Amino acid sequence: MSETMFPDFENLGNAVGYAEKIRQVVGHNALFDDFTVEDLKHLGPYMHVYRAPPHGRIIVEGERGDFMAFTIDGLVDVTKKDRWDVVKRIAVVQAGAALGEMSMIDGEARFASCAAIEATTFAVLTRVKLQELITNEPRLASKILMKLVYMLSQRLRQTSAKLVNYLEK
Amino acid sequence: MSETMFPDFENLGNAVGYAEKIRQVVGHNALFDDFTVEDLKHLGPYMHVYRAPPHGRIIVEGERGDFMAFTIDGLVDVTKKDRWDVVKRIAVVQAGAALGEMSMIDGEARFASCAAIEATTFAVLTRVKLQELITNEPRLASKILMKLVYMLSQRLRQTSAKLVNYLEK
Repeated sequence: MSETMFPDFENLGNAVGYAEKIRQVVGHNALFDDFTVEDLKHLGPYMHVYRAPPHGRIIVEGERGDFMAFTIDGLVDVTKKDRWDVVKRIAVVQAGAALGEMSMIDGEARFASCAAIEATTFAVLTRVKLQELITNEPRLASKILMKLVYMLSQRLRQTSAKLVNYLEK
Repeated sequence: MSETMFPDFENLGNAVGYAEKIRQVVGHNALFDDFTVEDLKHLGPYMHVYRAPPHGRIIVEGERGDFMAFTIDGLVDVTKKDRWDVVKRIAVVQAGAALGEMSMIDGEARFASCAAIEATTFAVLTRVKLQELITNEPRLASKILMKLVYMLSQRLRQTSAKLVNYLEK
């Protein structure tokens, strides 16, 4: 993990010390195994934790990016420009949210911007670290990916449900 | 796998014999390891293959469902009722598409209906089989989940990009 990834943010080191905190915010999926504190301690060395001040930009729309962020506390504004370049808020997210996972996985430009509303602590997982995790800890990697599929499914349900009302028959 | 899952469709047995065919349609992600034929042969026993005739209903909006389908050939109409109960087409998908993965993962009701437009061959993966796969073949499970995250990300980008143009500032 580069030391200069977020030069303006407080660098809180790897995520080993945040295992219990992350477990509390990560949420629960009744259908599949949850993360144990043990899992998150194994995950710790693969992630790096930062703290953004209010207005700190975590992700910038249109940029390239090979990492995702997982919010541990705080509040984050998610905005996107529409086709007329007007900035629109598409979500406000709290602790336990995944940010930037689409670009991490598909390599395309950042879809939206994410900026801290209040001071926000977040753990970063890069594409390279995810690949290492799949190789070294495939069972744990499966849990993370399952969690991402779950989050993306929920967001896709919400987004598609809104959109369908605008579609022509 | 229940023999009666799709009683009206041709039952083509498990997916072992479809490894090469699936590999051809599964697509390519330059950022992560692709599926090898070897992978798909390992996957075969966990999936079951059916062939739906034209108009055959693969997934029904509002129902409960604990499986996803992966299309091997054919053409599928994806429709959803809007808030006025008007049925709207939200997509037409070809070989290589994932259907029903949201309900498989989050356990909620089917978001949309999927029906064959022309005769369509598809492989079914149930939640139980996915859990077995995570336990028995975690590296392979990671590849499948990565593929699902990739597909969901692409769909979420497309859906959100359309929706943002309708949002108020």
